[in-house]
Amino acid sequence: MSILIAVSDNENPLVKDVLETFKAELPEREFVLSGDLFDRRAVSYAVSWKHKPGALANLPMLEAIFSLGAGVDFLFKDERLPDVALYRVAQDDLTFRMSEYVVLQCLMHLRDQRRFDLQQQKHEWIVGSTPPTASEVRVGIMGMGVLGTDAAYKLKTLGFDVAGWSRAPKSVPDIPVFAGEDGLEALLKRTDILVSLLPLTDQTRGILNLPLFEKLARDGKLAGPVLINPGRGGLQVEEDILKALDDGILAGASLDVFDVEPLPENSALWAHPKVILTPHIAAASEAVKTAKYIANQIKLLEAGKDVPGKVDRSLGY
Amino acid sequence: MSILIAVSDNENPLVKDVLETFKAELPEREFVLSGDLFDRRAVSYAVSWKHKPGALANLPMLEAIFSLGAGVDFLFKDERLPDVALYRVAQDDLTFRMSEYVVLQCLMHLRDQRRFDLQQQKHEWIVGSTPPTASEVRVGIMGMGVLGTDAAYKLKTLGFDVAGWSRAPKSVPDIPVFAGEDGLEALLKRTDILVSLLPLTDQTRGILNLPLFEKLARDGKLAGPVLINPGRGGLQVEEDILKALDDGILAGASLDVFDVEPLPENSALWAHPKVILTPHIAAASEAVKTAKYIANQIKLLEAGKDVPGKVDRSLGY
Repeated sequence: MSILIAVSDNENPLVKDVLETFKAELPEREFVLSGDLFDRRAVSYAVSWKHKPGALANLPMLEAIFSLGAGVDFLFKDERLPDVALYRVAQDDLTFRMSEYVVLQCLMHLRDQRRFDLQQQKHEWIVGSTPPTASEVRVGIMGMGVLGTDAAYKLKTLGFDVAGWSRAPKSVPDIPVFAGEDGLEALLKRTDILVSLLPLTDQTRGILNLPLFEKLARDGKLAGPVLINPGRGGLQVEEDILKALDDGILAGASLDVFDVEPLPENSALWAHPKVILTPHIAAASEAVKTAKYIANQIKLLEAGKDVPGKVDRSLGY
Repeated sequence: MSILIAVSDNENPLVKDVLETFKAELPEREFVLSGDLFDRRAVSYAVSWKHKPGALANLPMLEAIFSLGAGVDFLFKDERLPDVALYRVAQDDLTFRMSEYVVLQCLMHLRDQRRFDLQQQKHEWIVGSTPPTASEVRVGIMGMGVLGTDAAYKLKTLGFDVAGWSRAPKSVPDIPVFAGEDGLEALLKRTDILVSLLPLTDQTRGILNLPLFEKLARDGKLAGPVLINPGRGGLQVEEDILKALDDGILAGASLDVFDVEPLPENSALWAHPKVILTPHIAAASEAVKTAKYIANQIKLLEAGKDVPGKVDRSLGY
């Protein structure tokens, strides 16, 4: 019985960390890399990050596939994906890093950090008008899974007026959660800072578009509505974000993910004065911790226990 | 009976907001401005923000002085300060704004926001190594009054490993608080990010100096120790901060307050790549809210009730 590591690039230095951790955590197993020669009939599990489509086909004994990250949208791009159980990473470490990013970006917009950065560059001491407090600013979180819920509580502790939205009705103590199509309109209408933590599915692709931005609150205390997307690049329509920023429909954006990554050098987003742009680092997971997490998922699976991070294929996450 | 408003500059537009709010909240009173002609024997209260030394002398019926801010160090600069009760602002609004600033700056250093800002300017997509999580970073807060305690809890919620230090022993649930001279050494030894929220007194002037920076932890997960000072400029020795940054004794600093404000155009702090500099905006209070707060202090005082924000002259805060 062997475990197949199937990543887009075997030369990525993280592969070494992942492999060493697996070997220490699961010493009895054999590990093989996609692209190498190995006995396909011996593979019982596959661990994937953006594997080449088809790389997991023809594994007759395959029992489960583990994603090396929180997202699994790349799995469904593979038309030859075997019909076995899918698991994703849902570890605290990744959740907490994501919340750090979301809180940081909400505070940067609340406290106009970019204006002060520019003033510092020019050696200008300008206090300006007093900004609203967090309690006067409404944050709307699209996607109230593990990530959205943790970010919601942390933002609330800082004083923000937080609400969430999820596809299906959901109850989260102390946080109002809107649901469904009508609920989305209601959330947007009371949102000054929109945070997108949705999974990328056929239903959510391109959901962050101009018609949606136009539904955001116009009566807030910030200069205008702000978009924060640390979720998935495929959720956003980048030309709509640029148009909304230029037309004053959005007053600012923090973007960590993009349709094409790395973001092409000629994208207008790079130099846009209202955009805070980061290179997909919001919730970078640590290779060692992630490999330990997956090793534990495998141990739980084999012990017949509940395995966290089970993916529902019908939902796509 | 009248109330004297004594500020450094009567032309400051905030004076108008303060005055209008006072008149609405305390409609029966007369208000006078220092510098104008008024009956000195009729003044029962003075409301001050950096009044000209001596401006509060010769007020025979004066009962109390109210500071328009959280700090009162400017009062003690006046050698002719009358020996009456002193009160300062200790309102939630100001406390919460301060915590927003402290959390924002801690997260900017944790998540290396300045590096990403520079990369964005150069259109560079560089992920770099995974930063530590908040739980792997130790924050030390000097000054565990209302401000320090609120910031401590909010940082803890975000996952930071928080401890505090106060002059006299103090118990704060769930937050270890070191005290006294020995306690300060112990705090510094376990601190990666030092946050200064001390009042400015004869004991604390210049406390943020090179010998203190040298006692900070050298075994942390950040590039090196970081200083965040949103308290008072007089706490810091600015040439020591520059030396510590250049010698690698500090890896970064967020400074909101300075010995001379506005910070002179030729200060080397402006352009230092490791400094995040803001123009004394960490806890800018809103004139209207502050005036309402002081009006309420006056009402409580006259009703014989406990008045929040009473200053202990022997401590200087």
